[in-house]
Amino acid sequence: MTQTSTRNIQVIRTEHSPHAQLQPVPLQQVRLQDAFWTPRRETNRLKTLPTQFLKLEETGCLNNFRRAAGQTELHFEGPVFADSDAYKWLEAAAWTLAEGSNPELHRQVDELVSLIEGAQCANGYLNTFFMFEREKERFTESGAHELYCAGHLFQAAVALHRTTGNPRLLTASEKYANHMAEIFGPAEQGKKPWVDGHPEVEMALVELYRETGTRRYLDLAQYFLDARGHGLARDRVWVFWGSYGQDHKPFRDLKEVTGHAVRMVYLSAGAADLVLETGEQALEDALEAQWHNMTEKRMSVNGGIGPRHYTEGFGLDYELPSESAYNETCAAVGSIMWSQRMLSLTGEVKYADLIEHQLYNAALPGVSLDGQSYFYVNPLAAGSEHRRQGWFGCACCPPNAARLLATLPGYFYSTSESAVHVHLYAQSTSVIELPDGPTVKIEQQTNYPWDGRVRLVIEGTGTFSLNLRIPAWCEQATVKVMGEAEQQAQQGYFQLQRNWQGSTTIDLNLEMPVRYVVSHPHVMDSSGKVSVFRGPLLYCAEGTDHATDVRDLVLPEETSLKVQHHEQLNNAVVLVGPGTSQLQQGWEHKLYRNARDLQASRVAVNITLVPYYAWANREAGRMQVWLDQS
Amino acid sequence: MTQTSTRNIQVIRTEHSPHAQLQPVPLQQVRLQDAFWTPRRETNRLKTLPTQFLKLEETGCLNNFRRAAGQTELHFEGPVFADSDAYKWLEAAAWTLAEGSNPELHRQVDELVSLIEGAQCANGYLNTFFMFEREKERFTESGAHELYCAGHLFQAAVALHRTTGNPRLLTASEKYANHMAEIFGPAEQGKKPWVDGHPEVEMALVELYRETGTRRYLDLAQYFLDARGHGLARDRVWVFWGSYGQDHKPFRDLKEVTGHAVRMVYLSAGAADLVLETGEQALEDALEAQWHNMTEKRMSVNGGIGPRHYTEGFGLDYELPSESAYNETCAAVGSIMWSQRMLSLTGEVKYADLIEHQLYNAALPGVSLDGQSYFYVNPLAAGSEHRRQGWFGCACCPPNAARLLATLPGYFYSTSESAVHVHLYAQSTSVIELPDGPTVKIEQQTNYPWDGRVRLVIEGTGTFSLNLRIPAWCEQATVKVMGEAEQQAQQGYFQLQRNWQGSTTIDLNLEMPVRYVVSHPHVMDSSGKVSVFRGPLLYCAEGTDHATDVRDLVLPEETSLKVQHHEQLNNAVVLVGPGTSQLQQGWEHKLYRNARDLQASRVAVNITLVPYYAWANREAGRMQVWLDQS
Repeated sequence: MTQTSTRNIQVIRTEHSPHAQLQPVPLQQVRLQDAFWTPRRETNRLKTLPTQFLKLEETGCLNNFRRAAGQTELHFEGPVFADSDAYKWLEAAAWTLAEGSNPELHRQVDELVSLIEGAQCANGYLNTFFMFEREKERFTESGAHELYCAGHLFQAAVALHRTTGNPRLLTASEKYANHMAEIFGPAEQGKKPWVDGHPEVEMALVELYRETGTRRYLDLAQYFLDARGHGLARDRVWVFWGSYGQDHKPFRDLKEVTGHAVRMVYLSAGAADLVLETGEQALEDALEAQWHNMTEKRMSVNGGIGPRHYTEGFGLDYELPSESAYNETCAAVGSIMWSQRMLSLTGEVKYADLIEHQLYNAALPGVSLDGQSYFYVNPLAAGSEHRRQGWFGCACCPPNAARLLATLPGYFYSTSESAVHVHLYAQSTSVIELPDGPTVKIEQQTNYPWDGRVRLVIEGTGTFSLNLRIPAWCEQATVKVMGEAEQQAQQGYFQLQRNWQGSTTIDLNLEMPVRYVVSHPHVMDSSGKVSVFRGPLLYCAEGTDHATDVRDLVLPEETSLKVQHHEQLNNAVVLVGPGTSQLQQGWEHKLYRNARDLQASRVAVNITLVPYYAWANREAGRMQVWLDQS
Repeated sequence: MTQTSTRNIQVIRTEHSPHAQLQPVPLQQVRLQDAFWTPRRETNRLKTLPTQFLKLEETGCLNNFRRAAGQTELHFEGPVFADSDAYKWLEAAAWTLAEGSNPELHRQVDELVSLIEGAQCANGYLNTFFMFEREKERFTESGAHELYCAGHLFQAAVALHRTTGNPRLLTASEKYANHMAEIFGPAEQGKKPWVDGHPEVEMALVELYRETGTRRYLDLAQYFLDARGHGLARDRVWVFWGSYGQDHKPFRDLKEVTGHAVRMVYLSAGAADLVLETGEQALEDALEAQWHNMTEKRMSVNGGIGPRHYTEGFGLDYELPSESAYNETCAAVGSIMWSQRMLSLTGEVKYADLIEHQLYNAALPGVSLDGQSYFYVNPLAAGSEHRRQGWFGCACCPPNAARLLATLPGYFYSTSESAVHVHLYAQSTSVIELPDGPTVKIEQQTNYPWDGRVRLVIEGTGTFSLNLRIPAWCEQATVKVMGEAEQQAQQGYFQLQRNWQGSTTIDLNLEMPVRYVVSHPHVMDSSGKVSVFRGPLLYCAEGTDHATDVRDLVLPEETSLKVQHHEQLNNAVVLVGPGTSQLQQGWEHKLYRNARDLQASRVAVNITLVPYYAWANREAGRMQVWLDQS
């Protein structure tokens, strides 16, 4: 394996994409040094990735590759898509190698790459489930996740090539992609029409095209998208089709998010990748409509998506339950990947706003503070039995969270021709090359997200714009440039267009008072209740902090909640204040009663609210996001 | 076919069941002559059953039997459990024959009986799906609904035998049940251990035992119940197992209702049938616990059960959504059958209360007023696209509703040794034989459920108790016996123990003011809202009656709603009054906002509420049960 290079380690490599408005800043150019993300990413590198590798071994996932290579006669273990767990881990590891030398991780990556190479068939096919006695079943069932696994292989291969220059898996991926391109396509071209049950391969093929320049991969991604909605999918299990798999109508006619949430957002991310290359307006319009339907009708207040159990899917407009919400961690990760592509495509701040919101409140809750247990399901209210697990029979979420944390620095900045866009805030040092301009060094000095004050020290000489994101959650923001008067800043990108000289200090202040947030009146589940935010963070009440049932808490005025740092939760800011708890009388053995018979009293209680991402890291107990307010 | 006899047409024939506290009054002894149920039952006989028979023909269901008999080479049509649709229709038709002569229905019944006989294998096996090329797959997959179909066959056979004396289908059923008894049982008896995926056969086998006296059918029902919870079920589709199919723990350890709702309540109904025969306390305790969990934690305000889509199943405690509620019609029917058995077993009024509640508000909404279209899914809020359908690919609900309506008179009365229990009220004339006492004629004169005044004219001489159910919904009830002072009556059975002579007039008055009903504070979906009841009936708001979105309606004080009769809805009582509608400002393109930014105003609107069972019988529009109250 080659050493970490100074290659262009863009998380999505759109440098030649004709329709990209913004370019991601290469991963290794952004060095986080903050008290929030840096410890989490360190945990990801030192705890999460090593323990996940052990899980891959323990659960037989790695043995599946050995078996396919003829090295063992063990049975296949795990679900049909088990290979993807290894690929996602590998991708997470690959991005992590961008951080610098890590011999043990290098060794594990090399071992896994060899296993994968060994499992590949001579014709390029690569899936450890469909080997030997199952060879004849290859590409016969849409629900078998074959292209899904292939997509994760390609993404891992691209990441590894980008971060290390190692071409082995890229070669294997091209071989497999060529095999697929031979097989799949319109019947009139003498090929096999196909809709894969679980989208994922689309964005992977576009990235494979970007990495290799081979146009047929882009064309194949386009084919897989265009094939949907014409009844091609075939499967034994009927519930998994139609809108569940986004196959009930052509994608360009799909103006809402529907069906299995991970499938939906992976597909839309892939479609956005296609638009970055082709500029197709009809596709972009559909994506825009879907994204608005998601954020305006079908997203939990934490940014979680896909409330329905069993479909792991989207529901009706305003169907946003608390306790029964499914909101799979993978769906949040996929949504972030989709918004990342929409941000590159359009440069619109709303996508960066959602990325931040889902990072903190929908994806991060998926991992425990110690980095070794995971939520698959992320409800907004839960009993004490809902706890993070060390692994799952269907283990898609843990390595997905790991690859998100590994790529996190890539989400902080973008560049356009003569502007630097600052999307996220954290103590950090970054070196950003403007395409047609100077190299800019940006140091962020801040205790974000606990404090909204961000000092940016800009070093660079030349004319360019520094575009600071004023988050959608922030109602009161000011910007002060060295020696100048404080300016009010509105939500959106605050543009500092200057002829920069030497070192410039900018003081951004994002006020973050406690905010009570309500949902649309047609969301029945949270009707009449409030959720609590401070800055970008959603808060919740946990049983361990309260003597009464957290469902009965009544919040005081929002100004009565005060900030405290909580040592046990990595010094997170928690909110404390005087509240009450409702004592409901006469409900024993009753579910419904006459309204006029109600009797309630209240007792004073001290309320403590913790960041939602940090819940279930202490004693087990009930958790509640939506609360009553006095 | 023999003519309708004066046989003992009990819907559940517990005359020899040692643990039955109450005996149902034979079906043909109760003659409804009211303005509510009688037209619905007439529609059931004259419209529903004939059109359903046509559907069975059109959809290939009947051809499946012809195919099995070798009369056609057509392919099997419909889902794997299609046979059960025919059996359920046949059962509904059989009970309907108890009402008197009906040559055309007789002809269709005879035709279907012949088709079924023709499809039966020499060894007794009978399932038109597992014929010919699929013969080797018989009894290999728990999810294949084979015993479910068998159960519906047995129930139809028993009904036909009871109402007409026709033994043909009973003979076929015994042949099949004997075949099953040869095959299934504990491994230590050299038999095939088995858990069927969809409970239903249990209660059918008990009834087959009751009808034939053959003990092995009771034993087989007991075996199928006892086999559950030990991991015996086998199926390709893993999501359909465990708690979904009530196979995650032994039934006696199951203290809650869980999984697929129809499966759950059919299983519990079968277990109750077993207790009626065996008196097993542990089983009765489990049933009691399950029933309380259902009614106190997991039942929608209309009595609908099974809120979750895709599992068609129960959720968590207090997981009771409105618009996403599934609440299958079949589940309500099954719950009524379960409570019917619990009522016989215990004589406790709570079961009769639930029967009435679910009859009016959970089962009846499944059928349109014209008796020709059906709801499978019964949410408590819905958009205009949710309408009853003429039939379904999975058509379990339509014939289930038909058999419930056909058996309805059997739910009105029970007898114990020296008491008549009056469970339901409607204009009617009934002749009731007390086991150890006189024959009692009861005439009910009433406009129930629109009016709570019920005059009962009792003709009979001797000492017995007349037990009048004072419904749980009724807070103010009085009873006046001819020439005596008016007495206050409490909820429960009001016992009139007398030495009856000649004709006695009793005036029961059940006050039915409009009641606003709230849900337990931990039900998030209806928190802060009210539902509206009058007497036994739940009401709702429909779009067609309102100029504004029904979700925005605000009800006035409950005393402000007045009664009106609605001609288009079969003269149903609707509630009208002055209310308001909230105008929510600033929500365009927003799902969440800061609480402090809210602005709302109200406009006056006339509110009309219609009985929930009657919704979606006029112009399509949004419907809402849970409403705000000023």
